[in-house]
Amino acid sequence: MPELLDKINGPADLKNLTIKQLEKLAEEIRQELVAVVTVNGGHLASSLGVVELTIALHKVFNSPEDKIIWDVGHQSYAHKLLTGRKERFKTLRQFGGLSGFTSRDESIHDPFGTGHASTSVSAAMGMAKARDLAGEDYNVIAVIGDGAATGGMALEAFNNLSYLGSKLIVILNDNGMSISPTVGALSKIFSKIRFDKRYYRASEKSERILGFLPLGKKVWEFGDKIKSSIKGFVMPTTIWEEFGMAYMGPIDGHSIKDLERALTQARDYSHKPTLIHISTTKGKGYTPAEGDAVYFHGVSPKCKTEEDKTIPTYSEVFAQTILKLARQEPKLVVITPAMPEGNCLSIVQSEFPDRVFDVGICEQHAVTFAAGLATQGYIPVVAIYSTFLQRSFDQIIHDVCLQDLHVIFAIDRGGIVGDDGKTHQGIFDLSYLSLIPNLVLSAPKDENELQHLLYTATQTKHPMAIRYPRSCGTGIAMDESFRMIPLGTSEVLKAGNDVAIMAVGASVPYAIKAADELSAKGITPAVINGRFVKPLDSELLLDTARRIKYLITVEENVLSGGFGSSVSSLLQEAGLTDVRVKMIGIPDIYVEHGTPTILREKYGLDSNGIVKETLALLPQVKRIHC
Amino acid sequence: MPELLDKINGPADLKNLTIKQLEKLAEEIRQELVAVVTVNGGHLASSLGVVELTIALHKVFNSPEDKIIWDVGHQSYAHKLLTGRKERFKTLRQFGGLSGFTSRDESIHDPFGTGHASTSVSAAMGMAKARDLAGEDYNVIAVIGDGAATGGMALEAFNNLSYLGSKLIVILNDNGMSISPTVGALSKIFSKIRFDKRYYRASEKSERILGFLPLGKKVWEFGDKIKSSIKGFVMPTTIWEEFGMAYMGPIDGHSIKDLERALTQARDYSHKPTLIHISTTKGKGYTPAEGDAVYFHGVSPKCKTEEDKTIPTYSEVFAQTILKLARQEPKLVVITPAMPEGNCLSIVQSEFPDRVFDVGICEQHAVTFAAGLATQGYIPVVAIYSTFLQRSFDQIIHDVCLQDLHVIFAIDRGGIVGDDGKTHQGIFDLSYLSLIPNLVLSAPKDENELQHLLYTATQTKHPMAIRYPRSCGTGIAMDESFRMIPLGTSEVLKAGNDVAIMAVGASVPYAIKAADELSAKGITPAVINGRFVKPLDSELLLDTARRIKYLITVEENVLSGGFGSSVSSLLQEAGLTDVRVKMIGIPDIYVEHGTPTILREKYGLDSNGIVKETLALLPQVKRIHC
Repeated sequence: MPELLDKINGPADLKNLTIKQLEKLAEEIRQELVAVVTVNGGHLASSLGVVELTIALHKVFNSPEDKIIWDVGHQSYAHKLLTGRKERFKTLRQFGGLSGFTSRDESIHDPFGTGHASTSVSAAMGMAKARDLAGEDYNVIAVIGDGAATGGMALEAFNNLSYLGSKLIVILNDNGMSISPTVGALSKIFSKIRFDKRYYRASEKSERILGFLPLGKKVWEFGDKIKSSIKGFVMPTTIWEEFGMAYMGPIDGHSIKDLERALTQARDYSHKPTLIHISTTKGKGYTPAEGDAVYFHGVSPKCKTEEDKTIPTYSEVFAQTILKLARQEPKLVVITPAMPEGNCLSIVQSEFPDRVFDVGICEQHAVTFAAGLATQGYIPVVAIYSTFLQRSFDQIIHDVCLQDLHVIFAIDRGGIVGDDGKTHQGIFDLSYLSLIPNLVLSAPKDENELQHLLYTATQTKHPMAIRYPRSCGTGIAMDESFRMIPLGTSEVLKAGNDVAIMAVGASVPYAIKAADELSAKGITPAVINGRFVKPLDSELLLDTARRIKYLITVEENVLSGGFGSSVSSLLQEAGLTDVRVKMIGIPDIYVEHGTPTILREKYGLDSNGIVKETLALLPQVKRIHC
Repeated sequence: MPELLDKINGPADLKNLTIKQLEKLAEEIRQELVAVVTVNGGHLASSLGVVELTIALHKVFNSPEDKIIWDVGHQSYAHKLLTGRKERFKTLRQFGGLSGFTSRDESIHDPFGTGHASTSVSAAMGMAKARDLAGEDYNVIAVIGDGAATGGMALEAFNNLSYLGSKLIVILNDNGMSISPTVGALSKIFSKIRFDKRYYRASEKSERILGFLPLGKKVWEFGDKIKSSIKGFVMPTTIWEEFGMAYMGPIDGHSIKDLERALTQARDYSHKPTLIHISTTKGKGYTPAEGDAVYFHGVSPKCKTEEDKTIPTYSEVFAQTILKLARQEPKLVVITPAMPEGNCLSIVQSEFPDRVFDVGICEQHAVTFAAGLATQGYIPVVAIYSTFLQRSFDQIIHDVCLQDLHVIFAIDRGGIVGDDGKTHQGIFDLSYLSLIPNLVLSAPKDENELQHLLYTATQTKHPMAIRYPRSCGTGIAMDESFRMIPLGTSEVLKAGNDVAIMAVGASVPYAIKAADELSAKGITPAVINGRFVKPLDSELLLDTARRIKYLITVEENVLSGGFGSSVSSLLQEAGLTDVRVKMIGIPDIYVEHGTPTILREKYGLDSNGIVKETLALLPQVKRIHC
């Protein structure tokens, strides 16, 4: 029975609880997290890791006056439970329910919406500077994981902290994992601290755990002098001190008492940017998650046919194809920014450990690193989620495509992503990639075409992007051997005369289904697989438009600058002004969370939506005839 | 007489020169740089600062087998002179001539094209890894300035260096300036080294200048042990050592002898990533440039009317307007990523030093820092060049616009930029900003409209971008007081019936001129100032299209996803299929360097281009009538 949690309607309700009670509360929160997240899905391990931190933060600080920013936000579930969202917690990640991340729309206790990594320090600095300019005195706290702390924008922020000079608390939540184990120099520094008993005694429950604690207020009064005297004890702090920050830690991130003391110290006695380094265990308190934090970071869909046959996901087909290609092509290498599991790359890593590079949460570096490899004749495949590729926009333009380098972008999670919501939908990529010169942009209609497009990309001496959805494949039989798909060619899947439905990627199966439904109504639609968004198959599209005067385009992408927009421009350029085009896609909004099924229905991207728009487009007389 | 330089046709020709001759060569190179750059324009100060480094690099390494990557590339002029481009050097930055940056198309001695900051280390890592995989043994050298070294993607690369482990030489060219003086923690560390005589003795010509030098080969053999013994001498190296690099320096970047020794050491004895820290003077050897390196970084156009009246540039009007607005609106703050001079912000800095933030070369951080300020009721103006804003693409989507925060983007250098060429043209922004929900996107037709749009943006509680060109204003009289321009409203500048020319921003004056020329041919064109690219003025545009069946859109932006594409989609959506639209804009290529006049002519963006396309669009019969 969550008797304590039941009484917490906001942070004020935990101010008077004893440490024992808070520890009990932590237990209750863990139970609630496990109960809801194992049903709804979500980021269980990350959230379990910061239960004590969340409690300590709300004990020591006064949200919403004090601003607590959770980097990425996937670890904010306990924060949600403690800030008035307990009753709605069962709706987590469900359509109309609580978001899986923080969101300003959802609560005044979420001062900044998050989703992508590494934003919290910059945002916190903005708030801290605003506070200083306005002469106010609230606290600003950013909680950032060791993985997110290595993202370029977090490093930019760290570098700018001392110049800005505002008081600000950064909590480095160090669990040795980003999503996969963190790579890079900073991570080595962290682990040196974490695993060296000389530096980390909190676990021994010693009173002298932290170097600075017995000195109390004096640490801050005497500042540098005392800090250097304890440097031998808490040694590898230099990188943070070089960044102009006060450093406290490492602290046992599962000891509410230790956390409370450290946070209080930082709140009351530090007047400059302060880094509190805490050590936590991802998945803490729940054995399956603790044992395999990567798996529990986010659960992939399970794919079965109606006859219970297993279907691979697009991500799995990607990885299997890359493995086959890597065996054939010794120059093929793979780069992933901290997502080897999400991209199912472990099978490639095991067989070719030297040819898979996990560069950490560093999308910018990942792309230009690939460009460097390509200049020397290697064929790098950058495996990345659509939404995170936004971070590499300039590098794609400036380093890869301007130089026309042979880099392959394997873009997972394109289109409607679902439960992760506004920050994670892959709905901009067809537009922001279409505008880049030299880039070939494609999307397969099924997993068999995915393998052929990947093969085609290895044979194409130019940059090429292949965008596929976060979903199960269609269950189609996979060809034994690869085949080239000529660049810029579409494919007529169904002949017809009344209307042509041109769909991209994951929308193709819906287009086919819609065509069947329309056929049943006496309409004969053509269906075209518009698998190259760029270059467009001008010949086929114009031939079609000369013959059929009603075109429907379907894409899981914003309408501005997407596939439909390119088709419409093509027709104008060709002077084919007697054709009606209805563009189906994502309107000019951020798409909320919900199952893909619900979202596709809402935005008219499924077969019903296509049928409806087709009937609305076709002239009344035709419809009456049917 | 450049007798030595005249004999250098490639790096091989300087291998046998003595130090004295190389010093003489440096002098000759400086004379050539000054002679050409003071005529052609360009980055004089940066290039003068690395003359000795360039010579030493080509003495010690064998380009093109060894790969030398110049970060940003604006300092590569001496490199061009020494690598077979001497004869063409007088064509620097001219149409058809040498690029102002490095370019793979231009020379095999440019292994990686650059232009934007902070890319070199990632690219070098890619090349080094390719070399290791292929079992080859050439050297890879990245030269990066202290400003560019603080960009997020460079920090990502530094963090990833030790994980990758490849041998690689990074030369940190520390001149204490990025374009403006560098800000941030790393910069303080650099200057501590630069200005503390205990650490920097090269200028004293002592034999013991470098700590490691007298130890020679042994330093590398004994590695860490010896390094820590000299740590007291060359102290603040820790940040680089934390990044897993060997550290050498600081070295007098104007002593060819010292540079040659250090580079040789690194080449022959280091087997891991090595950072060589050199100290140089920007503008070295040319008094005007040395004294005011910022000014000499790049020279702005001088604007005069035919009557010799001074006209302000758009950048100047931006700054003057911001100053007036800052006086009226205490919540207005300005953020610039290392470009206060380029954006003419010094007048605002002097009056409001607390409200202008130069965050360094950190475009990602700049935008999310602004978002943080906006959450607390401040109105941040992010002043940035179009091409560099590409770095912030994800932050605009994810941190500003998703949360609908009141951040103003003042986008300078939109459209054709000119001499800086492919890497710097601002030709993608209307497309990549149009696709972002919640963002208002505008472009003024003249400098008077710029001030009103800036005012309008301060009164609009949503994110708003204002994009203006790198050029002189039109010379129009400036209104005394600000006025609101209703969002999403276009403006009919000239009534007409035969054709409607809808132009954006800097294209508007060309459209007016074209209309005059067309009128002289008996055609009556309407001219519309499409000042809001988003939201479009649907009402006016559709009314126009119902009346006039020939539309021309003009924009200095790629056609994909730009203004014309939006207009075309709007007409389709409205079912107005009897209208011909000709979209004038940048085709699907990277635009080379050249004067804006030449480039506008080449791409049909000037009045002649508009006239020509209009005549081609209008039906033959009409043209015969005229």
